[in-house]
Amino acid sequence: MIDSDDNHRVFNFSAGPSTLPLSVLKETRDEFVDYKGSGMSLIEMSHRGAHFMAVHEEAKALAKRVFRCPDDFEVLFVQGGATLQFAMVPINFLKSGNRAGYVISGSWAKGAFSDAKPYGEVYSAFDGANDNFTRMPLSEEIQIKPDTRYLHITSNETIGGIRFPKWPDVDVPLIADMSSEYMSRPVPFERFDLIYGGVQKNLGPAGLAVVFIRKSVIAGLNTDAARYLRYDIQYDKDSMFNTPPVFAIYLLGKMLKWMEGEGGLDAMEQAAEEKSSLLYDAIDQSDNYYNCPVDVSCRSRMNIVFRLPREELETEFVKQATASDLLNLKGHRSVGGLRASIYNAMPIEGVRALVEFMKNFRERHLE
Amino acid sequence: MIDSDDNHRVFNFSAGPSTLPLSVLKETRDEFVDYKGSGMSLIEMSHRGAHFMAVHEEAKALAKRVFRCPDDFEVLFVQGGATLQFAMVPINFLKSGNRAGYVISGSWAKGAFSDAKPYGEVYSAFDGANDNFTRMPLSEEIQIKPDTRYLHITSNETIGGIRFPKWPDVDVPLIADMSSEYMSRPVPFERFDLIYGGVQKNLGPAGLAVVFIRKSVIAGLNTDAARYLRYDIQYDKDSMFNTPPVFAIYLLGKMLKWMEGEGGLDAMEQAAEEKSSLLYDAIDQSDNYYNCPVDVSCRSRMNIVFRLPREELETEFVKQATASDLLNLKGHRSVGGLRASIYNAMPIEGVRALVEFMKNFRERHLE
Repeated sequence: MIDSDDNHRVFNFSAGPSTLPLSVLKETRDEFVDYKGSGMSLIEMSHRGAHFMAVHEEAKALAKRVFRCPDDFEVLFVQGGATLQFAMVPINFLKSGNRAGYVISGSWAKGAFSDAKPYGEVYSAFDGANDNFTRMPLSEEIQIKPDTRYLHITSNETIGGIRFPKWPDVDVPLIADMSSEYMSRPVPFERFDLIYGGVQKNLGPAGLAVVFIRKSVIAGLNTDAARYLRYDIQYDKDSMFNTPPVFAIYLLGKMLKWMEGEGGLDAMEQAAEEKSSLLYDAIDQSDNYYNCPVDVSCRSRMNIVFRLPREELETEFVKQATASDLLNLKGHRSVGGLRASIYNAMPIEGVRALVEFMKNFRERHLE
Repeated sequence: MIDSDDNHRVFNFSAGPSTLPLSVLKETRDEFVDYKGSGMSLIEMSHRGAHFMAVHEEAKALAKRVFRCPDDFEVLFVQGGATLQFAMVPINFLKSGNRAGYVISGSWAKGAFSDAKPYGEVYSAFDGANDNFTRMPLSEEIQIKPDTRYLHITSNETIGGIRFPKWPDVDVPLIADMSSEYMSRPVPFERFDLIYGGVQKNLGPAGLAVVFIRKSVIAGLNTDAARYLRYDIQYDKDSMFNTPPVFAIYLLGKMLKWMEGEGGLDAMEQAAEEKSSLLYDAIDQSDNYYNCPVDVSCRSRMNIVFRLPREELETEFVKQATASDLLNLKGHRSVGGLRASIYNAMPIEGVRALVEFMKNFRERHLE
């Protein structure tokens, strides 16, 4: 398609990094060389200078506001994506005498579980492998052992295409990787000690994780680690212990502002429901031409995975979709099939175009 | 000043993030919204897609080429800046039965030393505190203990404004933080097991460290850490274990290409010598109006620190310099005074303008 400025523009269903609003991209471009008449690009400026400090403060304030983060939490900006959080969570929380449970719900949860093992005692509180990772556990299926410091969950698995329809109701604090669901559903902060996520799906470009941490737990965290890896240091230094990833924080702020302008969390949640329903309806109303392997109750609103009757048709589907400016629909290499990632910045027009394409493709390739 | 496109442009002497070539900024701006006709910004693309993979491969190849990195080293891109390397180096290298020496040459070295302590036995091999961090040690002043796995050095201290004029000649492998000297002097790789640096001074924007690691040491590194923190994993996964910081790698590539076009390492070294000499001459020929506290043999070519006769004059100097589009000349808050950081992208015209300003300021404010 061609946008209002004569730019060629596609619908990009990539699982991350992923599509961003065109208005945000253009604003970033226009400010890039000379930031607010300073004679410098923002990326050339000292992170302690007035311009970046204002960007940093605004991004923090926006994050708290649009996520509806309560006052007893602080927001931290850390490099290394969700993956470094896989390490930092156990490094900070695990001690001799406590342990942590992990809900093994798919690839990302397995990664978090594996990365925690060097730092203390961790156990599987539920293993989705028996169901081929097609569903999340009910609360009563989650086994909590004594002295459990936290239960780690992955609220949405991008590869399996599943999410927790309801947050687990357990007697220990939750810690969640929300990378792929950030700002698309409200979070009951009162059940959590920490929430983290990479921003490159719902919130911005790659190179930054946003962490929400309960302030009251900070004093009790481990301190026998290098300073970058300690939440107490990141908190004390207001995420400026070392040079922060300036550009990623700047774009995060722009994205949060855009989401706020679009109506905030409620609007994002509603859009996610609407967009994902369009796709699931197209799948369910296809006489099993398209098939979603996920338990209906746990279907992701961000990553819609589906199969076609044969692999060759899937290859053909991706090829023709690409030719129609519907990009990056191939499923993750570990599971195959197709996947449409429809994060906050994916316009409903993109989903409608995909649904239309699916209908036409089916008609053309019925066997 | 006004550039050829009517942009207001200053000379930015920030210690990091720092000035970048205007041509690189403009090229980035022009490619930002629609990358090479793809209908997407590069920052929206899957890091496994063809466009970013090409960017990644080119940045790697350029890094090896312009740094003159020998084949027995590999280059890694890691988030978290040099500060996360303060952790990763000891996490990977220290074991029971070995230890590491640290040359305590200033603020950054102290940070690296402190961050290593949780991970094994480390010791001070030289402490510059006795000389108020105004010089680096001679090789014969460095005390190496038995079973030392590596000697850690900070090749240039941005706050103290000192550098190693000659690389230490010791019997153990060196590991260096070269953040503030990257690509401004040749490195004798044969003496090193690992070299690291954040890119936000000489090589690009904040949010990325470039690591050169000797391939033969990788198999012997520790594996009992979370995967992000392991060099063997980063190496096996070609720095793509998780989503890399796309934009920072892209700009790193552009910067390396720019440096190659300017004549590469030799040209950068020559420019650093020329630019720093202009400033040191201006200081030395000022009848002690300007004063550099650093031992002459160890003067940094990147961060030129100097004092004026009185603090009020320093404040006035910064104020008037700013009004003359010579920005960010205030010294680090921990030491005061003035500091001109003149990394690779600082044009000689900027240094000439500063020298001229210094002469005029002195004439106006002689007492």
